[in-house]
Amino acid sequence: MRLEVINTGTELLLGNTLNTHLAFLGESLLPLGLRIARQLTIPDGAIIGEAILETIGRADIVIVTGGLGPTSDDITRDLIAALLGLPLDLDPAVEAAIKDRLAHHQREMSPATRRQAMVPAGATVLKNAFGTAPGLYLPPLPVPSPPHSLSPHLILLPGPPRELRPMVRDEVLPLLRSLCQGRTAIREMRNFRLANLGETQVAATLEPSLLSLGDVELGYCARAGEVIVRLLGTPAQLAAAETIVSAAFPAHYFSSSEHPLEFTVVDLLARLGQTITTAESCTGGFLAHRLTNVPGASAVFPQGLITYANQAKSDLLGVPQILLDQHGAVSPEVCAAMAQGALRAAHTDHALAVTGIAGPSGGSPAKPVGTVFIGLASQAHPEPLVERFLFPVERETFKQLAAQSALDLLRRRLIRMV
Amino acid sequence: MRLEVINTGTELLLGNTLNTHLAFLGESLLPLGLRIARQLTIPDGAIIGEAILETIGRADIVIVTGGLGPTSDDITRDLIAALLGLPLDLDPAVEAAIKDRLAHHQREMSPATRRQAMVPAGATVLKNAFGTAPGLYLPPLPVPSPPHSLSPHLILLPGPPRELRPMVRDEVLPLLRSLCQGRTAIREMRNFRLANLGETQVAATLEPSLLSLGDVELGYCARAGEVIVRLLGTPAQLAAAETIVSAAFPAHYFSSSEHPLEFTVVDLLARLGQTITTAESCTGGFLAHRLTNVPGASAVFPQGLITYANQAKSDLLGVPQILLDQHGAVSPEVCAAMAQGALRAAHTDHALAVTGIAGPSGGSPAKPVGTVFIGLASQAHPEPLVERFLFPVERETFKQLAAQSALDLLRRRLIRMV
Repeated sequence: MRLEVINTGTELLLGNTLNTHLAFLGESLLPLGLRIARQLTIPDGAIIGEAILETIGRADIVIVTGGLGPTSDDITRDLIAALLGLPLDLDPAVEAAIKDRLAHHQREMSPATRRQAMVPAGATVLKNAFGTAPGLYLPPLPVPSPPHSLSPHLILLPGPPRELRPMVRDEVLPLLRSLCQGRTAIREMRNFRLANLGETQVAATLEPSLLSLGDVELGYCARAGEVIVRLLGTPAQLAAAETIVSAAFPAHYFSSSEHPLEFTVVDLLARLGQTITTAESCTGGFLAHRLTNVPGASAVFPQGLITYANQAKSDLLGVPQILLDQHGAVSPEVCAAMAQGALRAAHTDHALAVTGIAGPSGGSPAKPVGTVFIGLASQAHPEPLVERFLFPVERETFKQLAAQSALDLLRRRLIRMV
Repeated sequence: MRLEVINTGTELLLGNTLNTHLAFLGESLLPLGLRIARQLTIPDGAIIGEAILETIGRADIVIVTGGLGPTSDDITRDLIAALLGLPLDLDPAVEAAIKDRLAHHQREMSPATRRQAMVPAGATVLKNAFGTAPGLYLPPLPVPSPPHSLSPHLILLPGPPRELRPMVRDEVLPLLRSLCQGRTAIREMRNFRLANLGETQVAATLEPSLLSLGDVELGYCARAGEVIVRLLGTPAQLAAAETIVSAAFPAHYFSSSEHPLEFTVVDLLARLGQTITTAESCTGGFLAHRLTNVPGASAVFPQGLITYANQAKSDLLGVPQILLDQHGAVSPEVCAAMAQGALRAAHTDHALAVTGIAGPSGGSPAKPVGTVFIGLASQAHPEPLVERFLFPVERETFKQLAAQSALDLLRRRLIRMV
């Protein structure tokens, strides 16, 4: 089964928007034994017809993204229907779903919005749980030229990632699985997640043993403070791989799920029946944001403090003025006092404190931009543990690395308690 | 001048690696009046020959990335030389540069590395200041088929972004500028950002007037709680467009910069010499995170509170227990008390409070999942302004929409004060 992807969207070619669909689709299709043979990006507009024609006789399946919305440049649906000679009919179920969705947002349906309920004859509607434009699946159909040829299986998806991603997971992958049945080698994919290690070190240590498992596919993905080892193989190979990974890096391997580190931390806290609070300076709420991204976080995270100014560190955390004066806000002493103060204020089992210099300004030779101290105080270990890091990167990555290190410091304490 | 891009690299199609070249090239080429008409991603290997042939007669310029390195799958140089019937000769200057570079890293030149010094006859070498593989420029040359046809201008660039980007800036853009001289209309791009409006409404209102400006290009991009209207035109057209956009949506148009809403809010606060604090329940720190993403936020944001638990709402914000009991934590009454309590605690000029039900659980018929109240209290308007919203979307988008609405509520108050 040869699959191609066509991404429509002028914004992708003008440099406004990164094409994240390609990587997402590539990763999602792998377990089905499907690979993307070619991917084309084209502007909004009539060229989509030409691009589809080029795939005829070459591709079995074509996934098209974008151009299904309500504005004048959203013409994928109309052009493909015209190309295949299919009439467009108003689908009452889609229309009702759009109306419902708009009513929820206290908006009325306009003629432009109603266009999204037009479905080419013979198409299957792919539900959009997060937007008004449904996806569409068109089975192979005769095309005008070359004679007697059939179009590929066509899957049309909306452009916004928050609509496309759930649709791929819930509608497209089951459909493709049935199309591929018996025609591709279906394997499973697992992401082994390792905290605070470098990609080179992980690869050098694991690669010989993982490749000795036989016919597996191995990839690495480096994120902020995390390396993901991606393995495609049989269930037995994946089980053996997990043993290899966890034995090689027992302190760093934290999950084989799709979820980042905060899910592991919240899960550990919930299993222990314990709670956490945060005192953030340079991460400015990002650490709390990550914890509260986990459904059910409220059971383990009652409150958090963002103490950006020194006054806030004194007022809210009781950090003694003398420590701020003598050591500065970015110091192990102030970090320890922040963690202790947060623990006292929230009556939780654990408190994480972060103080550092996110930049772009504010550094000094002794404490350059990127310096960060992370402190952990616990009821069972009242003396705070403070670690120092240097992340000389731009502001958002700095916040990610600092929050990741804080979560990992807590994780390492919690795994010794379960 | 019609330009196309071909990105080679199996990793781009397997989901390991995001294709950042496309957005970078798109943005770099725009000021020259060049746009990417099509972009193709293909795996490493022989298919590059086929992909180049497809562009003949269709493109004037083709930029190819990847496949110039020393490993066995780096065959772009050889295949293109073969396609054009050009002999490959060892370039002594390139060989010397590679040797120099390797010596710096205490490495010797291997036969695989020496291949990178092979240059097709007639090609111009594009210097690589950050790696061993040089780029290559090949002017139009006769190709075997169709008869009497010429290849496009071919520009071959190395795959690693840290090598490609400086090469584009220092070698490719000057080359393209001379190729385009007098043949392209140099235009500019502007993004007009509108808060808390739907794409359909924005398009319906603005499109007739914007298109009447003449030869402009118009696009829309919908983000969480934001619509970006993208316009390409002359400086005069862009100035006229800004007048149209701000007159049509005076309360919603907030910026024509590259930055999201928090930059506008922090800038307004800084200009007013005022400060803000936050009291977050369901956004769990995300609102503070957005504010602190702006360099210099510390001047306007001294502290923020995350009061996830009811106890925290009482302890930190002084929300009366009776309000929590009678109205529940997700209510206009509690939201108003949170905003007032935050203002009192932080002594800032303004305080934003957010309380709602992020889900997936916790909803009721009167207050379904997605319900959120946003409150704003200011020293100059002590009586809190509270707005109710419904964002029935998944957890992360919910947080984005709620934070966006909070920032916009503050922005609308601030613009009346500057």
